[in-house]
Amino acid sequence: MDKDLPRHGSERSPVGIDLHIDVGAGTEPRARSIESALREAVTSGRLPAGTRLPGTRSLADDLGIARGTVVEAYAQLVAEGWLVSTTGSGTRVAETRLPSAKIAPRPSSSNIPTRRLIDLRPGRPDVSLFPHALWAASVKRSLAAADNSSMDYGDQAGLRVLREAVAMYVSRTRGVRAEARAVVVTSGFTHGLALLSRALRELGVRTIATEDPGLAHHRRMIHGAGLVTSPLTVGPHGADPAGIPPDARAVLLTPAHQHPRGVVLSPALRSAFLDWASVLDGFVIEDDYDGEFRYDKQPMGAMQALDPERVVFAGSTSKALAPGLRIGWLVLPERLRIPVLEAITATGATVGAPDQLALADLLERGDYDRHVRGARQNYQKRRAELSTRLADLTDVPLEGVPAGLHALLPLSSWQEEKRLVDAGLAAGVRLMGLHATGYWQSPGCGNAGLIIGYATPPQHSWRPALDALSHVLDGAAITPWCGRSASSRPVSPTDAGTSPH
Amino acid sequence: MDKDLPRHGSERSPVGIDLHIDVGAGTEPRARSIESALREAVTSGRLPAGTRLPGTRSLADDLGIARGTVVEAYAQLVAEGWLVSTTGSGTRVAETRLPSAKIAPRPSSSNIPTRRLIDLRPGRPDVSLFPHALWAASVKRSLAAADNSSMDYGDQAGLRVLREAVAMYVSRTRGVRAEARAVVVTSGFTHGLALLSRALRELGVRTIATEDPGLAHHRRMIHGAGLVTSPLTVGPHGADPAGIPPDARAVLLTPAHQHPRGVVLSPALRSAFLDWASVLDGFVIEDDYDGEFRYDKQPMGAMQALDPERVVFAGSTSKALAPGLRIGWLVLPERLRIPVLEAITATGATVGAPDQLALADLLERGDYDRHVRGARQNYQKRRAELSTRLADLTDVPLEGVPAGLHALLPLSSWQEEKRLVDAGLAAGVRLMGLHATGYWQSPGCGNAGLIIGYATPPQHSWRPALDALSHVLDGAAITPWCGRSASSRPVSPTDAGTSPH
Repeated sequence: MDKDLPRHGSERSPVGIDLHIDVGAGTEPRARSIESALREAVTSGRLPAGTRLPGTRSLADDLGIARGTVVEAYAQLVAEGWLVSTTGSGTRVAETRLPSAKIAPRPSSSNIPTRRLIDLRPGRPDVSLFPHALWAASVKRSLAAADNSSMDYGDQAGLRVLREAVAMYVSRTRGVRAEARAVVVTSGFTHGLALLSRALRELGVRTIATEDPGLAHHRRMIHGAGLVTSPLTVGPHGADPAGIPPDARAVLLTPAHQHPRGVVLSPALRSAFLDWASVLDGFVIEDDYDGEFRYDKQPMGAMQALDPERVVFAGSTSKALAPGLRIGWLVLPERLRIPVLEAITATGATVGAPDQLALADLLERGDYDRHVRGARQNYQKRRAELSTRLADLTDVPLEGVPAGLHALLPLSSWQEEKRLVDAGLAAGVRLMGLHATGYWQSPGCGNAGLIIGYATPPQHSWRPALDALSHVLDGAAITPWCGRSASSRPVSPTDAGTSPH
Repeated sequence: MDKDLPRHGSERSPVGIDLHIDVGAGTEPRARSIESALREAVTSGRLPAGTRLPGTRSLADDLGIARGTVVEAYAQLVAEGWLVSTTGSGTRVAETRLPSAKIAPRPSSSNIPTRRLIDLRPGRPDVSLFPHALWAASVKRSLAAADNSSMDYGDQAGLRVLREAVAMYVSRTRGVRAEARAVVVTSGFTHGLALLSRALRELGVRTIATEDPGLAHHRRMIHGAGLVTSPLTVGPHGADPAGIPPDARAVLLTPAHQHPRGVVLSPALRSAFLDWASVLDGFVIEDDYDGEFRYDKQPMGAMQALDPERVVFAGSTSKALAPGLRIGWLVLPERLRIPVLEAITATGATVGAPDQLALADLLERGDYDRHVRGARQNYQKRRAELSTRLADLTDVPLEGVPAGLHALLPLSSWQEEKRLVDAGLAAGVRLMGLHATGYWQSPGCGNAGLIIGYATPPQHSWRPALDALSHVLDGAAITPWCGRSASSRPVSPTDAGTSPH
């Protein structure tokens, strides 16, 4: 690998250096040459730890230079820790820990799971659909066009060009009432939730009501900011505002597509939450985590539009493009703007300018919309195929509306859930259990099931995934929750027969 | 602008839609057509807030559709907040706040200062040197080659490929003893310091000693994590470990080039800090903020190499490439690794994969080194020119060693400092005062001066900046601090005459 290592300039790493050969070339002082040569020899591993160096007099003689020059070089490297000098035993190369990459070439591809399982866990899109070439073209185009100031320390809220593009996008596609001023660029929803929790705490909020079932990870983010969470039961029409405790001043909701039950928060319940917020001076955090993906009809517009000064709209590129981008946004009520910016300052993390510029470019050109549309058709097809397969196995429908990147299949018990997850591993698919993953805060019926992330596998693995899943589910105790009958579908029409439109 | 707006798919925003013309085209149900048309008309500003809509019967007649269809569409949009329905006064468009970009076209370039001042404030490189084309090429190449898993939710520590490249780079150029396992990718040094403060608090640290003078911003980050700071006097050989209070268990240092005094921490003082850390089980945070930029000789190797299990090495791309990238790194002692990763999880922010991949590519190809070398030559020249100019005005030398991106010019008083900063604004240059910017925690002589960020202006502004600065400094009370004589240079040889090598 050494031959590929870039040279660091003649004054630091002369070409062809070797401790015993070439310390006098060039115009630099001899002491520095020796020092460079030694440092290079040690860091490259050519002089292993413990190697005993020649005495200063001996080396000076060998090289035909003054002994003081060698003494000076040794002393500098001892001060730097490369050499160790002990009375009586001379000077040795210190025990260093060299980068492993220098010892063994790294594998050509990192992060490869040790077993090649097909991943059907929810929460991510098919990352093989990420539009590499489009993204790279946007980086190139937008960097070339950007003002130099874009690459300087910037606005904590994010680059103005991206905040404007996001405001347009969420207004156009989700009905959000947004100006660039209200938009803050985040490193994804989780980061946004951490910032919001901190900001709400500054405004005196102590308790946030969260959906039950809901992501344990989100509750942990809230707890991490020193706040308390309180569960809201999710029914067929969404979370129940009657469960908000008296001391809560904020609620975290997934109105477009409840995670994980998949139901849509009804207009009546939306109004009830907003009435609560209005009366008690509370805030609603609207996690629009997969709002772009509804398959049966146009999604309901964002709840934020009903009361932009009480609802925070939160979106991200994690489902529409890829989680690895780490870009999301908050559309904030004016009162939360400064506290959120202060939280950003306190935590010190903002999104890099090249990624911000590229995303703004993708949004402005409509490439983002086109990508979402393509992904939507793909996932819609997968969901329909999943429903069709399941219809052969059970009369119990998937929970929730046909939307998003996952489907929830109710099971009779956590024992059955565990059995199926284990059977999945044996059959080559990773499955996620509802009960095992801590979605539920309160016990009750309907807390076991599989959350099937049908968007997760790359396209070529989808059919094998479906086959493996069918195999696993054959004979499973799939059961409607809480006494519902298999034939009555509480929330939405079956989506197996939904035709694309 | 409307003509550039991407279409969102025929089911959501039919081409050529107009409320009064074309709601029946296509195969979608009429109610959804009207709803789409109305939402579009409102969000695009075509129907301004307050506009009274036709009655349901009248509109139904106009369009030749059932009245119930119109009622349904209106009701949905009222539920979403786009329309307001009042008994007696019919249905109106709600008061919405449209994105400003829809009202006025945004300026072609954001972040333009209102006055075109040349910026000589420190802390940033010449961002016009940012290698746009190289970066874009690295994004393209590395995205095309990357495993799909790079774009998924990833390792909190950063992509392995980047951690390996960083470990190689800091080992090679700064003598750091680093393995990929010890490297954590951050959103710049400030983010790293926030993470470290949180991690150190978890390990029981309550007080961190910081250099005086030193960046107030860094002290604030530490305070933000609930820790206390305590000042360490910086002398001509760097910070004085004798000032560490008994309860401190960590120190924050800038050993290669003290910020802002510009001195190098001597080997003896390095040893003293490490002895302290070893005896009291403390940590040293080594902020190597501009370690790549030394002009007179090879920089001293990283202090981290002397004791990798007690020293955190922190670097970033902010000075070498651009602050807007928001990428830095920590090389961590094993004991701090998990606490720092937990701090990342708790705050939810990590760096985007495309930027990580591109930086790894730049580092591996040696493009990063080549860029740094070019920038180093440029800044070295600027510093020499600055010294030459100053030599015409005063016998007082710049403080510190010829290194980094700024020079510190000592002044007689804060009044003189303020006068010069004001004179700078009048002459077209932004200057930063040492006293005014809160660098000093304790009062004393030598707390006034100008910190001249000679790397900040773009190349074409450098000469005008130098001229304006000369004009401002002509007749200024430039004075050695604390009774030093103008002719004795306490720390290093003059750099005006340093020849490039």
